[in-house]
Amino acid sequence: MALKGNALIGQSGGPSPVINASVVAAVEAARQVPEIENFYGALHGLDGVLNEAMIDLFREDPETLKGIARAPSAALGTSRLKPKPADLERVFEVFKAHNIRYFFYIGGNDSQLACHHISELAKQGDWEIRIVGIPKTIDNDLMVTDNCPGFGSAARYAAAATAFVSKDAEAFGNIEVVEIMGRYAGWLTGATAAARREERDGPHLVYVPEFKVDPENFLEDARAAFDEYGYLVVAVSEGFAFSEAELATVSDKVDEFGHKRLGGVAQALAEMLEKELGVRARFDRLGNLQRCFQYCLSRADWQEAYAVGQDAVRRAAAGETDVMITIQRKSNDPFTFECETTSLLSVADKTKLVPREWINERGNGVTQEFLDYVTPLLEGEDIPGGGLPHYPRFQGHRIEAKLPPYDRPK
Amino acid sequence: MALKGNALIGQSGGPSPVINASVVAAVEAARQVPEIENFYGALHGLDGVLNEAMIDLFREDPETLKGIARAPSAALGTSRLKPKPADLERVFEVFKAHNIRYFFYIGGNDSQLACHHISELAKQGDWEIRIVGIPKTIDNDLMVTDNCPGFGSAARYAAAATAFVSKDAEAFGNIEVVEIMGRYAGWLTGATAAARREERDGPHLVYVPEFKVDPENFLEDARAAFDEYGYLVVAVSEGFAFSEAELATVSDKVDEFGHKRLGGVAQALAEMLEKELGVRARFDRLGNLQRCFQYCLSRADWQEAYAVGQDAVRRAAAGETDVMITIQRKSNDPFTFECETTSLLSVADKTKLVPREWINERGNGVTQEFLDYVTPLLEGEDIPGGGLPHYPRFQGHRIEAKLPPYDRPK
Repeated sequence: MALKGNALIGQSGGPSPVINASVVAAVEAARQVPEIENFYGALHGLDGVLNEAMIDLFREDPETLKGIARAPSAALGTSRLKPKPADLERVFEVFKAHNIRYFFYIGGNDSQLACHHISELAKQGDWEIRIVGIPKTIDNDLMVTDNCPGFGSAARYAAAATAFVSKDAEAFGNIEVVEIMGRYAGWLTGATAAARREERDGPHLVYVPEFKVDPENFLEDARAAFDEYGYLVVAVSEGFAFSEAELATVSDKVDEFGHKRLGGVAQALAEMLEKELGVRARFDRLGNLQRCFQYCLSRADWQEAYAVGQDAVRRAAAGETDVMITIQRKSNDPFTFECETTSLLSVADKTKLVPREWINERGNGVTQEFLDYVTPLLEGEDIPGGGLPHYPRFQGHRIEAKLPPYDRPK
Repeated sequence: MALKGNALIGQSGGPSPVINASVVAAVEAARQVPEIENFYGALHGLDGVLNEAMIDLFREDPETLKGIARAPSAALGTSRLKPKPADLERVFEVFKAHNIRYFFYIGGNDSQLACHHISELAKQGDWEIRIVGIPKTIDNDLMVTDNCPGFGSAARYAAAATAFVSKDAEAFGNIEVVEIMGRYAGWLTGATAAARREERDGPHLVYVPEFKVDPENFLEDARAAFDEYGYLVVAVSEGFAFSEAELATVSDKVDEFGHKRLGGVAQALAEMLEKELGVRARFDRLGNLQRCFQYCLSRADWQEAYAVGQDAVRRAAAGETDVMITIQRKSNDPFTFECETTSLLSVADKTKLVPREWINERGNGVTQEFLDYVTPLLEGEDIPGGGLPHYPRFQGHRIEAKLPPYDRPK
């Protein structure tokens, strides 16, 4: 079982508020493994491997590691490189040149696919190495695992931000559309529903990419909610589209501006609502802040990110390879979990969508099952009150009018 | 001096994370004033006055008031109504019908202008009333006062958000442009410079509306910063424009999309940078979150908002009228201040810009004086570490390369 040599870890894909916890946990766990002689960090993921841009993580001082474990974004740098066959050959050259016997790669389904390719090549080759994937994605769209490290904190930010802009929209009595990350999966957007503590709190309507809605139904629901609450907050995934091709023109506009990157659905919905309801409608795109706003750190999320980093090293040391660490939820209150594993192939390049039964019938919100799933992941420890913002309203004892109604001159 | 009757308070213009503290402070101070028999709150500012939509604030229970004092946005509702002459007549009808002898209006320069008009009419009329303006604006653009309640918290959010997205941009080694509120005044945008604790931290370049920059200089500075730090973060006010009409086309686009509302400069700069520097550039608009993100509450800001509400009532009770409460800074460390007053006319409809000498010579940053001014306003108590995010980087002991450089196949 004992495999002596060096270990290498890399961060990949979009950063998260907790991905650094996984790196630090792996370093700390590796210190307890005598077979791991050196622990290297690849700068900018596979880019760093290909270019031999690596740093010695055992030489980092404990104070620095402690600080980095709480720092958002990817302290080693990240990369979106998808390896080609020649890249994979080069990876093994680097592994051999630096006696890398343990490889840990932190990322989403793209990164687990890269891990899988490397793992397959290792099986065919002459280089014994243990390869373990560490899950990370704010999108929460990895298969098998209960949830993904990175999601809880991003979801907490999205929910808190939606709660805050809801207060702002309520003060004006107008319409607000919040655009949340999620090209295919509506996990983050669905999580904003947890911000709704009372019936009249926003978000009143929640739209995810998994379910297509008719524009007529959307307008009908929006009008009804606005009439009922005196304001309206809509949360929508960037990947949402109507059943008909209503949003296609918006996508065209976005292409022209944004180089085929997503974004624009909130603006389109806001314009549509303003026109149809005759009420001023504004929009906010939560944008990149969703994956780095460390002030909304989720406690469970950080614990998970630390645990998967630690577990990856322990399992590799014990002989496991070609697996990704997963989270198995054990209880909701208090939230507890254990780490398990799944094959890299079972998660590589696959996307876990919000199940149909967790989206309500009308397609304009999520169910209680979704809320029960997500709520334990949104708890925080840093801010008084813990989880999501919630504030009282005035009881509002109305003064009786004494004058005839005022007819304001135009 | 004693003027017996009812008091009325209203909130006006864009909400802030602390405007409710001013309302609650006024209610609590009014309870100590025997001449104030009832204390009403106008729903949605002057709209509520015109339509007699008012609530009895003395009947709110202390628990609710306590919660609302910490709630972002405007708990009474707000309004952007600019009163016409007929409206002012109506205001006095309502004052008389409800025996309003004290009127407090919380808002920015527009709202203080409305106050001034009401005050002028009162002087000519037969209704004795004391009118005191309470300052509020996240833009920090009111004359006379050292700073404006609402600014500190919004600035803290803007600075923290910029620090966070800087970490994200650094992980990718790309370009990020952050768009911050401020049509004419760059106070909020300048405050993001406080997020830069080390030379290589973002934001590397800061552009305010007060100073026009040549596009060539902008690109030159951007290229130099990117080359030096390996990534680039630009903070820009929504009202910024180049010396030439370079941004006019963008404004046209924005008009077409956004109904002549501001926004679009960050996208324009990001596109320009991506094209000219050949590096992926992204942008984030901090949007409405700037005025409601209560998790970034500034301690000084909340204290100021409470103090101006309290002081307004005390001064009105003592006979003062036709004034707005101001903040006089007494010391920076610890930050202390006193409340003073200024005439409504001295602030009505005027805008305080960032002085030229607080913007650096090149127009791409703020000076130490600006930072000394703004930093005490950014301290918070709710989040460990207090003020702005700051995290260590890896010391980065590089591993020596052992292979020839890799020439990646296209």
